[in-house]
Amino acid sequence: MAYIDLQNDLPGIRGPMAYSPQTGAALNEIAEILLHDENNTLSRGERELIAAYVSSENDCFFCQNVHGAMAQYYFQVDMQFIDDIKRDYRSTPISDKLKALLTIAGSVQKGGKYVTAEQVAGAKDLGATDKEIHDTVLIAAAFCMFNRYVDGLNTWAPDDRQAYVARAKMRAEDGYANMNVTK
Amino acid sequence: MAYIDLQNDLPGIRGPMAYSPQTGAALNEIAEILLHDENNTLSRGERELIAAYVSSENDCFFCQNVHGAMAQYYFQVDMQFIDDIKRDYRSTPISDKLKALLTIAGSVQKGGKYVTAEQVAGAKDLGATDKEIHDTVLIAAAFCMFNRYVDGLNTWAPDDRQAYVARAKMRAEDGYANMNVTK
Repeated sequence: MAYIDLQNDLPGIRGPMAYSPQTGAALNEIAEILLHDENNTLSRGERELIAAYVSSENDCFFCQNVHGAMAQYYFQVDMQFIDDIKRDYRSTPISDKLKALLTIAGSVQKGGKYVTAEQVAGAKDLGATDKEIHDTVLIAAAFCMFNRYVDGLNTWAPDDRQAYVARAKMRAEDGYANMNVTK
Repeated sequence: MAYIDLQNDLPGIRGPMAYSPQTGAALNEIAEILLHDENNTLSRGERELIAAYVSSENDCFFCQNVHGAMAQYYFQVDMQFIDDIKRDYRSTPISDKLKALLTIAGSVQKGGKYVTAEQVAGAKDLGATDKEIHDTVLIAAAFCMFNRYVDGLNTWAPDDRQAYVARAKMRAEDGYANMNVTK
């Protein structure tokens, strides 16, 4: 049960977003730009995967399943594939560039200063642009916020991971901006 | 030197904000609501202090000095007072309620699940409202994002702490929304 009275029984981040709609709208605007905006050379699936990976490293059940489900929807894979990436992305058949970006994201999750010049140079050698590195750092940083917001308030989350998969298509079509968090 | 070509030589978060103005605007909107909006029972000084404390715990030189300077401006104290709070807030003459909120913020900095029911109950016993606890968690979470954005891209920061103090009055008057990050 949440540590404060959220005045709703919505799961995960949707509870505090409905409780505090002004910050909720601003947070969803960030998610929209980073994860859903089409004007990005990283695919939506790649960006959702970075979000899911960081959320997994932060042990945030709600976020890792929301965004893991989004990634599996875009990649047209199953949740096992996402779980394999969370456990050991280096051994999965994703691109070397995406692996290098996940390495940077994993460092950001530990703290900004864990990112090294070598990690960035490695990603650039594999074709990552400055903008892609920027977005990777900011997605990873943003999920260090979202995850803490969700778990710091002790929100609840559905146990059934299929519940997250079932919602992914709707969220992919609607995006995050101006979302009605109560639906 | 920043890990990517930010196409400007602005310090700290202002560099990537100018590089990526769409996300910059959304991030400043979050800062505006959380730190500057007058419609809040936590004072601007208290909210800036939470931001400075979390930034200090994350060892982010730029953010802890920007927001430490904001806090000293609002509290009308010197930077030594802010440093005392960062080092051992329990021994400073701030209110017991603010100390309890800083305890929660310190837990959020470590990770959302570090916040305990006892910490929240303790803050409530000292008069903290649900909304104040919500805002404390979200400010602390947001600075775990801002700090990682600043340091994950290896941005530079002025060494002279008086440079931060000198800017505090302008920022206090202008706020964060729609700020021109190049000035």
